[in-house]
Amino acid sequence: MEKKLERIKAAELQDRVVTAQEAAAWIQDGMTLGLSGFTRAGDVKAVPYALVERAETESFKVNVFTGASLGSDIDRLFAEAGIVNKRLPFQAEPAMRKAINAGEMYFVDHHLSHTAEWIRSGVIEPIDFAIVEALSITEDGMIIPTTSVGNSSVFVKHAKNIIVEINAAQPELFEGIHDIYDTGKQGERDPIPLTSVDQRIGTKGIPVDMDRVRGIVFTHQEDSPSNIVAPDAETKIMADHLLNFFRSEIEAGRLTETLAPLQSGIGSVANAVLHGMIDSEFKNLEVYSEVLQDAVFDLIDAGKVDFASCCSITLSEPKMKQVFSDFDQYRDKIIMRPQEISNHPEVVRRLGLISINTALEFDMYGNVNSTHVSGTKMMNGIGGSGDFARNARLAIFVTKSTAKDGKISSVVPFASHIDHTEHDVDVVVTEQGYADLRGLAPRQRVEAIIENCVHPDYRPQMREYYEEALTRGGQTPHVLEKAFSWHESLAKNGTMLVKKEQLV
Amino acid sequence: MEKKLERIKAAELQDRVVTAQEAAAWIQDGMTLGLSGFTRAGDVKAVPYALVERAETESFKVNVFTGASLGSDIDRLFAEAGIVNKRLPFQAEPAMRKAINAGEMYFVDHHLSHTAEWIRSGVIEPIDFAIVEALSITEDGMIIPTTSVGNSSVFVKHAKNIIVEINAAQPELFEGIHDIYDTGKQGERDPIPLTSVDQRIGTKGIPVDMDRVRGIVFTHQEDSPSNIVAPDAETKIMADHLLNFFRSEIEAGRLTETLAPLQSGIGSVANAVLHGMIDSEFKNLEVYSEVLQDAVFDLIDAGKVDFASCCSITLSEPKMKQVFSDFDQYRDKIIMRPQEISNHPEVVRRLGLISINTALEFDMYGNVNSTHVSGTKMMNGIGGSGDFARNARLAIFVTKSTAKDGKISSVVPFASHIDHTEHDVDVVVTEQGYADLRGLAPRQRVEAIIENCVHPDYRPQMREYYEEALTRGGQTPHVLEKAFSWHESLAKNGTMLVKKEQLV
Repeated sequence: MEKKLERIKAAELQDRVVTAQEAAAWIQDGMTLGLSGFTRAGDVKAVPYALVERAETESFKVNVFTGASLGSDIDRLFAEAGIVNKRLPFQAEPAMRKAINAGEMYFVDHHLSHTAEWIRSGVIEPIDFAIVEALSITEDGMIIPTTSVGNSSVFVKHAKNIIVEINAAQPELFEGIHDIYDTGKQGERDPIPLTSVDQRIGTKGIPVDMDRVRGIVFTHQEDSPSNIVAPDAETKIMADHLLNFFRSEIEAGRLTETLAPLQSGIGSVANAVLHGMIDSEFKNLEVYSEVLQDAVFDLIDAGKVDFASCCSITLSEPKMKQVFSDFDQYRDKIIMRPQEISNHPEVVRRLGLISINTALEFDMYGNVNSTHVSGTKMMNGIGGSGDFARNARLAIFVTKSTAKDGKISSVVPFASHIDHTEHDVDVVVTEQGYADLRGLAPRQRVEAIIENCVHPDYRPQMREYYEEALTRGGQTPHVLEKAFSWHESLAKNGTMLVKKEQLV
Repeated sequence: MEKKLERIKAAELQDRVVTAQEAAAWIQDGMTLGLSGFTRAGDVKAVPYALVERAETESFKVNVFTGASLGSDIDRLFAEAGIVNKRLPFQAEPAMRKAINAGEMYFVDHHLSHTAEWIRSGVIEPIDFAIVEALSITEDGMIIPTTSVGNSSVFVKHAKNIIVEINAAQPELFEGIHDIYDTGKQGERDPIPLTSVDQRIGTKGIPVDMDRVRGIVFTHQEDSPSNIVAPDAETKIMADHLLNFFRSEIEAGRLTETLAPLQSGIGSVANAVLHGMIDSEFKNLEVYSEVLQDAVFDLIDAGKVDFASCCSITLSEPKMKQVFSDFDQYRDKIIMRPQEISNHPEVVRRLGLISINTALEFDMYGNVNSTHVSGTKMMNGIGGSGDFARNARLAIFVTKSTAKDGKISSVVPFASHIDHTEHDVDVVVTEQGYADLRGLAPRQRVEAIIENCVHPDYRPQMREYYEEALTRGGQTPHVLEKAFSWHESLAKNGTMLVKKEQLV
């Protein structure tokens, strides 16, 4: 215990140590919790488990606000225990997804840079308990976060009560990589002074009003590793297409070999695309993103990436072992910020990011669906893709042209849900090629997308739809009664593919 | 002529005076023009007319980039002459609309704050001729704009050649109200230093490289007046609903009587809604918008608005007479900026604007269509609505609940085109009431929208659609094969209204 207490350097907080069960007992039915955690990294673990235990004998519901998705099975346990009323701004867990799609809990699918504004201005439920993971608490009462910052700083600032989980399993060398900045209220704030990826603008920890620290819990549990899969043949081809696009931008004088700060969304495809840069000619790259996945560390190791800014680090099990055990060599190349800053439109536009995110499907005019399977069933959420795409220098979306052994075309006549409109999508990439949509009118975009992105199996029926749409005219020709016919076919026949003989 | 030459204070430019016909003769087939003009204000007039004349005997096409819509019949004349290859970023003219929807010209429907980035970074065709209207040219060669700034400063900076139209019919007292600021390139720029609506951050005119000034044309023609219609009973009710929403925000402690800087889109409905504030208790208001319409000057006259920032002033004929003849009393209450700054996400989010824009239709989940009639035919364009809605403190969309004598419901099951996604729409207002969608999950939004915004005639069939959708489940329940059935009914039967007996 003595040794543990060394992590609480603020003497007046040392008597607030409680068990997770004691802390969980303070949480009442109807309360709103602000939990640390961003894509499986830096989530609180012990108090959520204790809360789930309580649900075995008690009936209650709480609102759960986080940075993004939680690891450590927490979203699954929460969903299975049925204790969540409202969840925001992001999740990525199959059991929770099921509960959301069954209408058993409310899910507010929210831009990750915006939740802080809602909390600060009192638009959503006030936070009763901020529960955040820490490496330690400094003498002056600053919370040093662990492997993510997420929304923790805004939760701590605005919560009525604060519970800190000090996790001794997290890498102590992370102390010093965080940079906590509070924008202040809208209408009263100064410009965010950030003008380069490696610039520090804040404090190394989260300032805390110590009176509101209700309890401190000690834990010892590693983050859940990421579940990305390794690059495959198709994602490697997609990476090549993207690199060729960058080369054409350099040839046109719009980029140089150092490109521009890169943002890459979570997931296997985006990771694979970044990974594709290792053997490229590009160099002295910078990353300004939310989550750093394996590929960024591979790029640092390869001497390709000079600096990376993030709000979370989520790695596979072997990569986590390597990076965390040898973190000294990465420390001066990484800054971790609140998600409001890592995703802030002001900074995204100023720095001129190259933003690479995964699409679930996109349509022939370039509208992108990031969230809903066949327009209705939530997958994960929009995450930061809108924060970045809307303001980036280059908004790039990547996806394989088909899914489920070719039964689903990821390029459709009309996206069944739209998260990124035609106005905000610059380049789309599949394993077939890339379409640069910038400056093109809708009818020009269709040609570029059919020729370069649609799988050859689906090109004839896409052409047929478009030819019929053209007979109706318009800036954006459509046959509304057939706009979702591919999705209908999938539901009825198990495939979007119309038999060739049906196409005349 | 001597008197006219006084307007060209830079002596070395005085010998560049030419006729509009001489200037128009320089323009070659395939060139790209950057014209001043934003919602009928401050457009160049003589050279475009002369260009249209040339089309009587010559065959050519040009790309026409502007601030926003042109007045002075120019978009009509251009469209009828068939001389436009590509038009961006906005238009609002029936003949041009027809040509666009017939596929006779390309229209790139672009966020108004983004075109400057495309020009600066060379994404779209380089500007061969910037042709901009001016009050005068200063001794050091700055162009003093007239009733709009729009994209003129970025056109002038990046064009190969510059033609200036000095228009003696424009109000000379406008000199001094402009504030020209250039952000510089992405990745190399500083924060935009603007932290208050009335702050000046730039120069009073557009700095010019005099070597590139190819010609100066003298003109004398007033702007086209705006064609907004006066508030009617329904828009007055909508204004009341909106004011009641503001009152509830004050009660919740999220706003004060001075509200927050207001942005209001172009058009009769938005104008009427602003107009509704004249007899309200709100005071010391500020406006940070693109276009100032009549209502803003009425609000200044009524002592309600203290300051207004804009990139254009577009008034009705009587209001233009009054304001321009008596401009001294408004001069210290107005700043006119480039549209990149008036609409910049960085500034919009920092100041925390209340953004009020008109929807063409929206769906039961809050996705907004601002541009396409029945998903296919372009109306005007997205304009600045996306610049503002995406980053505002409050993104509000207003529309009457029905159109065409009730044959069209403006609220539909699935928006036939989506310009603003569910993630970016906070409040929707019709004459039926308002729905505050913030923090609501999709199923909660449906309830709020049906109860508060849908016309009673359409509520039963909306309920029926939603009930069927619920049987399919999902985060965002839909019946995809019926998602556009209302639009199909309109096309077939001339009305979206299903007969009551058809609803079981």
